[in-house]
Amino acid sequence: MVVYDPEQLLVQAKQSNRVALAKLLSIVERGGSRARELAKLTWGHGGDTYVVGITGAPGAGKSTLTDGLISQVRSRSREVAIIAVDPTSPFSGGAILGDRVRMQEHATDSGVFIRSMATRGHLGGLALAVPDAVRVLSAVKFPYVFIETVGVGQVEVEVIGAADTVTVVLTPGWGDAVQVNKAGLMEVADLFIINKADRAGARETRRDIELMLEMSTFEGWIPPIIETVATEGKGMGEVFEAIESHREYLERSGMGQKRRKSRILEELTRIVRAEANRKVDQMMSDPWFSPKIAKLINGEIDPYSLASELLKVEGG
Amino acid sequence: MVVYDPEQLLVQAKQSNRVALAKLLSIVERGGSRARELAKLTWGHGGDTYVVGITGAPGAGKSTLTDGLISQVRSRSREVAIIAVDPTSPFSGGAILGDRVRMQEHATDSGVFIRSMATRGHLGGLALAVPDAVRVLSAVKFPYVFIETVGVGQVEVEVIGAADTVTVVLTPGWGDAVQVNKAGLMEVADLFIINKADRAGARETRRDIELMLEMSTFEGWIPPIIETVATEGKGMGEVFEAIESHREYLERSGMGQKRRKSRILEELTRIVRAEANRKVDQMMSDPWFSPKIAKLINGEIDPYSLASELLKVEGG
Repeated sequence: MVVYDPEQLLVQAKQSNRVALAKLLSIVERGGSRARELAKLTWGHGGDTYVVGITGAPGAGKSTLTDGLISQVRSRSREVAIIAVDPTSPFSGGAILGDRVRMQEHATDSGVFIRSMATRGHLGGLALAVPDAVRVLSAVKFPYVFIETVGVGQVEVEVIGAADTVTVVLTPGWGDAVQVNKAGLMEVADLFIINKADRAGARETRRDIELMLEMSTFEGWIPPIIETVATEGKGMGEVFEAIESHREYLERSGMGQKRRKSRILEELTRIVRAEANRKVDQMMSDPWFSPKIAKLINGEIDPYSLASELLKVEGG
Repeated sequence: MVVYDPEQLLVQAKQSNRVALAKLLSIVERGGSRARELAKLTWGHGGDTYVVGITGAPGAGKSTLTDGLISQVRSRSREVAIIAVDPTSPFSGGAILGDRVRMQEHATDSGVFIRSMATRGHLGGLALAVPDAVRVLSAVKFPYVFIETVGVGQVEVEVIGAADTVTVVLTPGWGDAVQVNKAGLMEVADLFIINKADRAGARETRRDIELMLEMSTFEGWIPPIIETVATEGKGMGEVFEAIESHREYLERSGMGQKRRKSRILEELTRIVRAEANRKVDQMMSDPWFSPKIAKLINGEIDPYSLASELLKVEGG
């Protein structure tokens, strides 16, 4: 018999059953009541897992970098899980798939677990699903989780917010740093990587980042800028050390705890909103609501007044 | 004294005061209580204005096409307002601005009103703001409103839903039709334009569209496919006639009324959700909520249980 019960699957996944783990993450991805049940089961986990976010524009070499970081973790005999986030966009599907295939190099290593996540349709989905997925991976005791996202838009900034150390990948040439700044990534970045640093323009990109860092204010931690050539493994050790330094800083300064708190609050807000929306949808399909709709369509009442009325009924 | 009262501004805008009209659209764009007040004032309007949506991937030549359609409307001595929608994306800002500048050709014509709209931050915003903007333009008696959107993603599909006739612009070459289909535009398209039809691959693109149309089901109206070379004005008359044919079809068949109803319902759902979210945010910043948050952070309660508790309090 196929097991679909989150609680049973979690027990199995904790015994290193990767199929059970994959099923749990599918539950998270699909959402709904079983995802909520699972979220309740794994809540409170997360303290022992270190989460590294890796983001940047398409083509920056994030997957090769992630590959290199996986090797760094594995050379220290630690296990790592990777969540490759794919915000559904009609224009990007293909490229990400290709990247994912490349990471399969580590697929035969049982100490590495790779999972891609996407949501179809609604955008709030990923921002809720990724922290849930991280807690599942934390419940099964992965010491490291990497979240890789493609693109530097709003969804990516939200998703990457679930990471302890946010790594932003740029490439030499004008423009990247400007886009990163525009997207609001400057405020969340803990570490900058200039990948493909053997190409022309690396110095200019560094200067762009430094300039933008000068315009920002920091409490304690100034994001380092590290140059890498990921395809040749150059600079990967340095990146990993910078991540560990940042981790130490977060622990020493108490910033880690502070960040964790604000992340939990953000997550609560998203959950409450999603649940409120669910309730609203239910209410609107209720039969007593039909005559109100007729009035609305005839122009006898406007939708804002009707919304107030509806929420007053709900609000008691 | 500067007038900021929506009611007064609306009176002025109805007397062809374009500055007042621009201010009203800024109110819509900013949202909040004044936008709600304005929405109540203009609700019920919209029946006499015909709304044409124009969408397609960047570079398809939508702005040149819109230009051509403006000329078609003007040659019939009718007025037209254009809403150029710019979903905030760090990667697209520049191009859209360029397009907009091109449309300024008609800027000296008092019978043409051009306005670009963008939201910063939150995505639901445009889907709510565009129908509000259309109603303002309808209240000041524009017989035609064009909504131009860039890109073929989720936001565009939502925004274009406010149009009576949805025009999807493609260009010769493989891929466009596939993207359009993926984005869910196939289901909302009333009219296909193959622009730059003098280039190689126009026939293949037509075949792609026809194939996808064959896989779809229609009630009454089969979307025509029109080839244009907008830069030379070729096919523009035909496009305008197709739009008018679609309009006649909507009126004759009763589909126009049916569509209007489902649009109103969708809009109500969005408004109720937005208002519910506003209430939730207020509740969460309430002092009685603080001890709950402490419990959440200590892992004594999970966010889903807390959300239920919170919404039960609200729900009475």
